Amino acid sequence: MDARIVGWGHTPFGALAGQSLEDLIKQAAGEALEHAGIEPSDVDAIWLGHFNGGLVPDAFPSSLVLGLDDGLRFTPATRVENACASGSAAVFAARNAIRAGAARTVLVIGAEKMTSQDTAGVTEALAGASYQAEEAGVSFPEVFARIAQGYFQRFGDKSEALARIAAKNHHNAMANPLAHLKKDLGFEFCNAASDKNRLIAPPLRMTDCSLISDGAAALVMVADDLVDDFDRAVGFRGTAQVNDYLPMSRRDMTELTGAAKAFAGAFDEAGISVGDLDAAEVHDCFTIAELMIYEAMGLAEKGKGDRVIESGRVSRGGDLPVNLSGGLKAKGHPVGATGVSMHVLAARQVTGTAGDMQADGAELACVFNMGGSGVASYCSVLEAVK
Amino acid sequence: MDARIVGWGHTPFGALAGQSLEDLIKQAAGEALEHAGIEPSDVDAIWLGHFNGGLVPDAFPSSLVLGLDDGLRFTPATRVENACASGSAAVFAARNAIRAGAARTVLVIGAEKMTSQDTAGVTEALAGASYQAEEAGVSFPEVFARIAQGYFQRFGDKSEALARIAAKNHHNAMANPLAHLKKDLGFEFCNAASDKNRLIAPPLRMTDCSLISDGAAALVMVADDLVDDFDRAVGFRGTAQVNDYLPMSRRDMTELTGAAKAFAGAFDEAGISVGDLDAAEVHDCFTIAELMIYEAMGLAEKGKGDRVIESGRVSRGGDLPVNLSGGLKAKGHPVGATGVSMHVLAARQVTGTAGDMQADGAELACVFNMGGSGVASYCSVLEAVK
Repeated sequence: MDARIVGWGHTPFGALAGQSLEDLIKQAAGEALEHAGIEPSDVDAIWLGHFNGGLVPDAFPSSLVLGLDDGLRFTPATRVENACASGSAAVFAARNAIRAGAARTVLVIGAEKMTSQDTAGVTEALAGASYQAEEAGVSFPEVFARIAQGYFQRFGDKSEALARIAAKNHHNAMANPLAHLKKDLGFEFCNAASDKNRLIAPPLRMTDCSLISDGAAALVMVADDLVDDFDRAVGFRGTAQVNDYLPMSRRDMTELTGAAKAFAGAFDEAGISVGDLDAAEVHDCFTIAELMIYEAMGLAEKGKGDRVIESGRVSRGGDLPVNLSGGLKAKGHPVGATGVSMHVLAARQVTGTAGDMQADGAELACVFNMGGSGVASYCSVLEAVK
Repeated sequence: MDARIVGWGHTPFGALAGQSLEDLIKQAAGEALEHAGIEPSDVDAIWLGHFNGGLVPDAFPSSLVLGLDDGLRFTPATRVENACASGSAAVFAARNAIRAGAARTVLVIGAEKMTSQDTAGVTEALAGASYQAEEAGVSFPEVFARIAQGYFQRFGDKSEALARIAAKNHHNAMANPLAHLKKDLGFEFCNAASDKNRLIAPPLRMTDCSLISDGAAALVMVADDLVDDFDRAVGFRGTAQVNDYLPMSRRDMTELTGAAKAFAGAFDEAGISVGDLDAAEVHDCFTIAELMIYEAMGLAEKGKGDRVIESGRVSRGGDLPVNLSGGLKAKGHPVGATGVSMHVLAARQVTGTAGDMQADGAELACVFNMGGSGVASYCSVLEAVK
């Protein structure tokens, strides 16, 4: 018995002033149930990916979705958290529930409401995802700036490659109606610090950082013997989760060690190599992360990730387009929603329903979702099975 | 394939000034690995139950335990949260992982560090577990005071029964070396509001409220085909999780509807009735909760829970002793730890290793762990299988 993705929902990502966390959860969940064509009362279990960390006062959100419909009352609901990988944590836990025989139809939701805090409040909440005993007070832009500095010291200044990644993802977001920022900023803008593209934490400019967004995404997954009842079914060809030490002081920060292990594990289980992938949604919380993910996924040796973006192969029309959705960079990054959103987008790619984002003939799509500075790493390889 | 509990650990509960969340997690985990007799490198997956909600700044705690031993590096680790039932959420998710074939040896930890905040701070953090759109600013003592008021209005003043429950649990804690408060306060003290037992939120007195505690508990669970390698093995005879609406306005607060369904579900799966149980650890966050749980578990009709405590049957030496550990009331209630602690204590009962807390010849022990005011309800019936 394995799980199949048979429906999905996805709110717009953005600064959604009129919508609460509860509203976002309900909207995405409602869309997913409708898309799958099932009734709320068909759901056996609910898994919610949500970070929070002080972004909103709702510290016990698992049951919020029950307010969507009386048919959901008494359904077991559980929140999971693995920082910015909370969404994938929910997908993986829900898949376990189906494989365990504990549920046959599962609703998975990822959600975050970030913009009810100002930027300082968001920065403080996200900083809770660092190792407090050593890194308290260090913001996430600073964390990834340190990573970029260390990487640049060892392998040379890669600011231009980072700007190309930013420009690619901003360009891609033009094709995603749900993206937070639909502005094709272009390489020149991204490559120069300026009044409109200021240095946030050197060497990272505004355009090297993902967005503070509200949003939610949802999936319906069922046991594989139920797929005849559904119009579509997407399977997990391979998956892996790897957690690494929380303190940065205990890791080599010039590489994403856990990410590399997660990619290798998922590819091994799928029986594929990176060259077999047709599309990937990866965790570009900062452009330096996407650069290092190229290396972790095996597209380049360590220190040579810049060649991947320069080659054009990860751009739209390349042999492995990365972040056709615009990525966290331009689609937006409502923390807990991100992993579920990535799975939705990958499922859309392999079912040929990604609209203007579609990679022609995509059969295998990869998700890579990361919590913290490479601490929690989730990789999924999805394929359509119906 | 099912999961078996083969080892456990449990820190003292209390105001543990010298110990951080990380320290508590590592201590309980280390004890559990040693008790099971396995190496850290044998662990395939880690599940952490933890509420937080602002109690500590560590918003991404899943990987903290990896610092215990290098053999845990790269092990997938996930935090789950269901308010005060976060510990049981971790147990259930971990069991799913084993039943799913995703892991064969799992480390489950529940932990909370509460006393680095003052009482006002703890109260505020816990209040995050209420429905913010309607109940923001209402403390949990006030929530359960309202429940008690509604119950008393309908069924009469049961303050004396609540005092008997408090006295029972304080008495029981004298036999638990790990309990937070080992003072046999007695019925007379508990039954009178006084300078030393003041009204916290009428009708609830200090002795009707559980403690603010630090602590952690841990379990090692393995796939059932591995039990030959272990000295002991405890199985899940029946389990159920039920979630109800978060807003109190949508529920009948004179009963624990979700709890009753969870007990019924677990008993049904176990093929037993409540009379078959030999011991139970239930969620006495407030004494009114334990009273209503008697009704939810089928020991009394609605409104007649007082007869259960008055009969003596749930006291030490009765036919179904409840909270031989002292319960949340006297053992302490480090929120995220509680569900795991309950499973540890039930496992000790059915393996005859509960020390001075032991119920003679206990074969079936029940855990009931609740999140919020009856919102998340987890019931497990445990039995020794080796």
